[in-house]
Amino acid sequence: MLTLYDNLGSGNGYKVRLLLTHLGIPFRRVDKSVTNGETRLPEYLRVNPNGRIPAVVFDDGRTLAESNAILLYFAEGTLYLPTHKFARAEVNQWLFFEQYSHEPYIAVLRFWRQYLESLTAIQEARVSELLEKGHAALKLMDDHMEKRQFLVDERYSIADIALYAYTHVAGDGGFDLAPYANLRAWLARVQCVPGHIPIDRECGP
Amino acid sequence: MLTLYDNLGSGNGYKVRLLLTHLGIPFRRVDKSVTNGETRLPEYLRVNPNGRIPAVVFDDGRTLAESNAILLYFAEGTLYLPTHKFARAEVNQWLFFEQYSHEPYIAVLRFWRQYLESLTAIQEARVSELLEKGHAALKLMDDHMEKRQFLVDERYSIADIALYAYTHVAGDGGFDLAPYANLRAWLARVQCVPGHIPIDRECGP
Repeated sequence: MLTLYDNLGSGNGYKVRLLLTHLGIPFRRVDKSVTNGETRLPEYLRVNPNGRIPAVVFDDGRTLAESNAILLYFAEGTLYLPTHKFARAEVNQWLFFEQYSHEPYIAVLRFWRQYLESLTAIQEARVSELLEKGHAALKLMDDHMEKRQFLVDERYSIADIALYAYTHVAGDGGFDLAPYANLRAWLARVQCVPGHIPIDRECGP
Repeated sequence: MLTLYDNLGSGNGYKVRLLLTHLGIPFRRVDKSVTNGETRLPEYLRVNPNGRIPAVVFDDGRTLAESNAILLYFAEGTLYLPTHKFARAEVNQWLFFEQYSHEPYIAVLRFWRQYLESLTAIQEARVSELLEKGHAALKLMDDHMEKRQFLVDERYSIADIALYAYTHVAGDGGFDLAPYANLRAWLARVQCVPGHIPIDRECGP
């Protein structure tokens, strides 16, 4: 059975849990703390040399890391990835946007506020920058969703899964979603997709 | 003809230039400054609402942003993307590693040192963190290349193109590559791939 190295609080882990649950693929979840250093221990670095969750280990021992690469792997050939080449390119565009222009601000501020006992002086000094850049990402998404139901091709896909993961808990990082009506409607729409599970729900067989 | 919004100093732009040149796809290059704010002007935000280069505009007006999403689009069905599903997943893993664990340290320090007149106090305070995390990325790649010729499947692919772009100019950001013999051998190998062009070479017809 597939093994998922995961953390129940992690949006990056949640993306994979949510897709595997939609697809009905059974998996064994191994929870790793993201604060006590256990993802940097030699045992785990053999799974993912980059020392991060999520990572999956297949029955034959092969491993795959990077949440969005894992989404692409399992979504291929399913309803959750468009077949049209340009629509797939747009999904990829959103996946890279998420990791470069969204997660480093929205997920990082949430991590700082939810997981750390206190911030360093440098972190304190960066809060306003992260809020500004995170809001820029949310505004871009809100504008994009003005006349759309889902991010790409008017169908729920792994682009929605990847962006939903940290957007719906952006409040934990201090982001007020009140100004983003289109975004809030989209969050509600994602929550209504059949088979949806919340971020902290332990799944698998 | 395809239009590439680009900047000759940008590694992200270079990735696209290098792949299009390998593929013999003609393109018109429009240079945008990354320091004078012109990528944030309304005219450019209609091309890429995220206000970054590179972005491509097709003949029919469709646009695509995010350097690695552009690489995946053009590499599909060519020698530069493996056909085997797991090898493609490994390419994707490297592409997301590049944007999350490599570029934000190695490219950002290069940008600070090459493009900014002076650093803010917060930037100055972050230099040691960026050096440490950038070296962690370089060490991971060096370990991976110990017994390999290329990043994935022993063949030159867009994973190599994406990681080469900022690794080969890491010195500009203050990263000494001397400790990374495997990485330096790989850089030399990439430079010997037929059709290789340097980062500052203006290409296209």
